[in-house]
Amino acid sequence: MTVPDDIIEALRGARRVFITTHVVPDGDAVGSLLGAKLALANLGKQCVAGLSDPVPPSLRFLPGSSGVWSGGCGMTGQFDLALVLDCGSLDRVGRCVEVVQTCPVSVNIDHHATNTLFAAINWVDTEAAATCEMVAELIRAMGVAYDSDIATCLFTGLSTDTGSFRYSNTRASTFRTAAELADAGARPWEIAQNVYDSRPYSSLAALAEAILGIEFSCNRLIASMAITAADMARHGITEGDTEGFIGYARSIDGVEIAVAFREVGQGTIRVGLRSKECVDVAAVASEFGGGGHTRASGCTIQGTMEEARSKLMPSLERALRKAGCTWTA
Amino acid sequence: MTVPDDIIEALRGARRVFITTHVVPDGDAVGSLLGAKLALANLGKQCVAGLSDPVPPSLRFLPGSSGVWSGGCGMTGQFDLALVLDCGSLDRVGRCVEVVQTCPVSVNIDHHATNTLFAAINWVDTEAAATCEMVAELIRAMGVAYDSDIATCLFTGLSTDTGSFRYSNTRASTFRTAAELADAGARPWEIAQNVYDSRPYSSLAALAEAILGIEFSCNRLIASMAITAADMARHGITEGDTEGFIGYARSIDGVEIAVAFREVGQGTIRVGLRSKECVDVAAVASEFGGGGHTRASGCTIQGTMEEARSKLMPSLERALRKAGCTWTA
Repeated sequence: MTVPDDIIEALRGARRVFITTHVVPDGDAVGSLLGAKLALANLGKQCVAGLSDPVPPSLRFLPGSSGVWSGGCGMTGQFDLALVLDCGSLDRVGRCVEVVQTCPVSVNIDHHATNTLFAAINWVDTEAAATCEMVAELIRAMGVAYDSDIATCLFTGLSTDTGSFRYSNTRASTFRTAAELADAGARPWEIAQNVYDSRPYSSLAALAEAILGIEFSCNRLIASMAITAADMARHGITEGDTEGFIGYARSIDGVEIAVAFREVGQGTIRVGLRSKECVDVAAVASEFGGGGHTRASGCTIQGTMEEARSKLMPSLERALRKAGCTWTA
Repeated sequence: MTVPDDIIEALRGARRVFITTHVVPDGDAVGSLLGAKLALANLGKQCVAGLSDPVPPSLRFLPGSSGVWSGGCGMTGQFDLALVLDCGSLDRVGRCVEVVQTCPVSVNIDHHATNTLFAAINWVDTEAAATCEMVAELIRAMGVAYDSDIATCLFTGLSTDTGSFRYSNTRASTFRTAAELADAGARPWEIAQNVYDSRPYSSLAALAEAILGIEFSCNRLIASMAITAADMARHGITEGDTEGFIGYARSIDGVEIAVAFREVGQGTIRVGLRSKECVDVAAVASEFGGGGHTRASGCTIQGTMEEARSKLMPSLERALRKAGCTWTA
């Protein structure tokens, strides 16, 4: 992994940097956002980290998370450079798009295969386990010393985007980066406690209900979960709390595709897709205007839960067949 | 971590080695057993890996697992040395105890703080994340080259005993060992698929029911699950399939102690104990003749589920108070 020279030059030359990432931010988004901000601040840059959505509760332990600006517009014309992290396309920055568009220079650092190369300078490495791994490399290349706060932010993204070192993007180099970040002061256990081991019982109970409601199709090659707005309201949870549910559907013996339908508003179904060994779910998501990785993607479908399911299923069946999976109806 | 010289000498001098580990073996037990067997076989030793219980289904992908001997007695007098791995006490080897006791030399390699130093030569390192980490060090010290089979076995134990690099025993050195094993051919993703991502739906449904049945006490400092023999029979699962359930109780916000009661026979309740930040659950388990680590231990209590709970709860309350936790009844 080599950091492109023009990124280092652009960042060295910038004085005021706006850093942002995607809507409904996960650990890699917030970790890379805050890690990059702290590192650039250590180089004397004036930085603002901006988010379209609030930092999710499980990530509020991250150093600097309380200083994230989430005011939408109103900060245009104040920055020399926009640094967009972990975003496959520009519309994924949500309400921060105006600030990004009015910056004289934009830099896009990401590891999603569906990245649209939307910025003036683009560095997309689909081999990277996490955008945090790329930011770690950038920090090394720019000669910033890791401190424990930076290491904590970057370790968090490395851990969450690899499913705690379990997904297929986990390589020997991922562990070396993790070791380096732990040496620099990241505490794997404390981070895991915050990210994975401090969930409200309500969210665990919602998970249990979602598991018991799993529906199978295509001879159990597809496992799908549905979480309605009413379910979320009853348990007092938000969409963000259901983030990891899909992994349980995916973990079932023999399942190739896991689907999570989440009703995020009247007539709006957010669909998460995961595959295990062979199906390209990024391609399926892009049929519905979404995107992501080959084995983890998402899209939004308008309609009821049942309509979303009816719209999606034929595409999933085609994708299964294309990947060589067979079943008897 | 330095391997004691007398262990290297004893192993170098042995020609026929019996290797065993604890009853109800987990990933670190089977991983260290098979990793050590493969490494010693590479040094020209005749090795038998013996287990009192069968290798659990989720670990049968491990190289060499089909060659594990589980015949109980009948092999006494055939070995120069017994290598006992990941066992806190000799009775934990179950039906293999007779073979171990009739070996002229015994070696005990373990990372449990409650280890009774039962062998002629003992190497107990409570700082090691897993016994597999110690076996990795032993293999290095004996000059055996890792092959991908050995690396796969040892990586598995490292992953399972750290909860996939999330428990407090995860250090920078753990990640360096993981990187080394991945370089040698261990495939983190394939291992995770087998160990974590190939569970039957029945076991996931049993988990979901156990979550929905969680009972809280001491102002939600204690979360306890109960899995009856009837529950297991209904889902067609065994005790081994419920191994990870307790982690969900532990993951709840504010919970300090998680307890899993499992009815493993008429009037026999196996109790798993986990703590999060301060309580010494190894001490609690040892009050009931069990043992383990400070934050993860277990014991067996005779009686009904309710009797086991009544016997255990006062000890847990005392342990909470001793650790400085307060609550109003």
